[in-house]
Amino acid sequence: MREAYHVELENLASKLADMCTQVAEAMERATRAMLDTDLELAERVISDDTLVDDARADCEEQAYALLALQSPVATDLRVILAAIHAAESLERMGDLALHVAKAARRRHPDPVLPDDVRQYFDDMGRASVRLARRAEQVIRTRDVDSARAIESDDDQVDEIHRHLFSVIMDKEWQHGVSAAVDITLLGRFYERYADHAVSVARRMVFVVTGRMPGYSTSDV
Amino acid sequence: MREAYHVELENLASKLADMCTQVAEAMERATRAMLDTDLELAERVISDDTLVDDARADCEEQAYALLALQSPVATDLRVILAAIHAAESLERMGDLALHVAKAARRRHPDPVLPDDVRQYFDDMGRASVRLARRAEQVIRTRDVDSARAIESDDDQVDEIHRHLFSVIMDKEWQHGVSAAVDITLLGRFYERYADHAVSVARRMVFVVTGRMPGYSTSDV
Repeated sequence: MREAYHVELENLASKLADMCTQVAEAMERATRAMLDTDLELAERVISDDTLVDDARADCEEQAYALLALQSPVATDLRVILAAIHAAESLERMGDLALHVAKAARRRHPDPVLPDDVRQYFDDMGRASVRLARRAEQVIRTRDVDSARAIESDDDQVDEIHRHLFSVIMDKEWQHGVSAAVDITLLGRFYERYADHAVSVARRMVFVVTGRMPGYSTSDV
Repeated sequence: MREAYHVELENLASKLADMCTQVAEAMERATRAMLDTDLELAERVISDDTLVDDARADCEEQAYALLALQSPVATDLRVILAAIHAAESLERMGDLALHVAKAARRRHPDPVLPDDVRQYFDDMGRASVRLARRAEQVIRTRDVDSARAIESDDDQVDEIHRHLFSVIMDKEWQHGVSAAVDITLLGRFYERYADHAVSVARRMVFVVTGRMPGYSTSDV
């Protein structure tokens, strides 16, 4: 019984790692589609989003089966619930990448971003994707230390996000209200994506170790 | 054992209903604080948000206890997981009301909104609060029919949200980039709040009836 439980849990963790890869690739492609005004790539992110939704449903089903068949208690129970929460956050990250891709499609063939803010989104995109890949790494390698680098990537996204507001609200802003509105929403999508990635990475540490980083288990 | 389970589940549903009230009041006050530039009311929403966080932790603990002590399967299991998801959405709704209150505080004593968009936010605020209260009603009265009115309130929020973009991107827009950025973010907060409220209301129908509206239970 316990043996089966651990095999199943391993299997669930591996599916969550695959979801991390999916949403990292989605955000990487969505960012490139936006920066390169690449409609085909944007369309691919948009159509691939159902795969993320399917993967989430699959993770939930497996978590439900574990709960129903193994009736876990204490830490084992919290580990499975952490996996369910992580799957939900990962689906949301996929949605946020989808929003970026849709913005690229909506403005095509025009670029969404004026030249002077491109670099910020390039940087935010890279940091966001790194966050998702770190969550994946935590699972695949059980190297919990890589989870420690998470906060600094998240800080970088937050810092760029804050700085963007000062850029678009500056008197020198030349690109009008419409570009400012796009940038406001896009900045928020990356910031939310990064927040969810942090939450996923923390939960992943818990799923593979049974211990939440920086929290006692009663806080999970 | 089954009797204890149903008493506990009743108790959990009642706590979720209380959370609905909390976040409905939070959004009602945040909207009024914003429209009336009422700093004291904004501060109240901001400080009360920890109560929503506490309530969510309390609901989760109770749901975990039900899972650990009763080892429910099939529909009972899904009902409890629906309650955990609902508590998470409700906490997020509290956060979104908090963001509105913080915007009111940030611009005080100036109003956040130019006069010509006040009415839209008044309407979005009312529809959003109605959504949260309907979710509460579903639990308190077990009147699942009131859940049917949910979609039309949500449609109203979405419609105003879309219309706001056409207002701020219009050539006639007189209030500059800064106001447009505030309105973009605020509109998004209401739209997300309403989406979460819809999801909570649907899950609440499931928590009190064991049946998901418009879905087979396997979709939950």
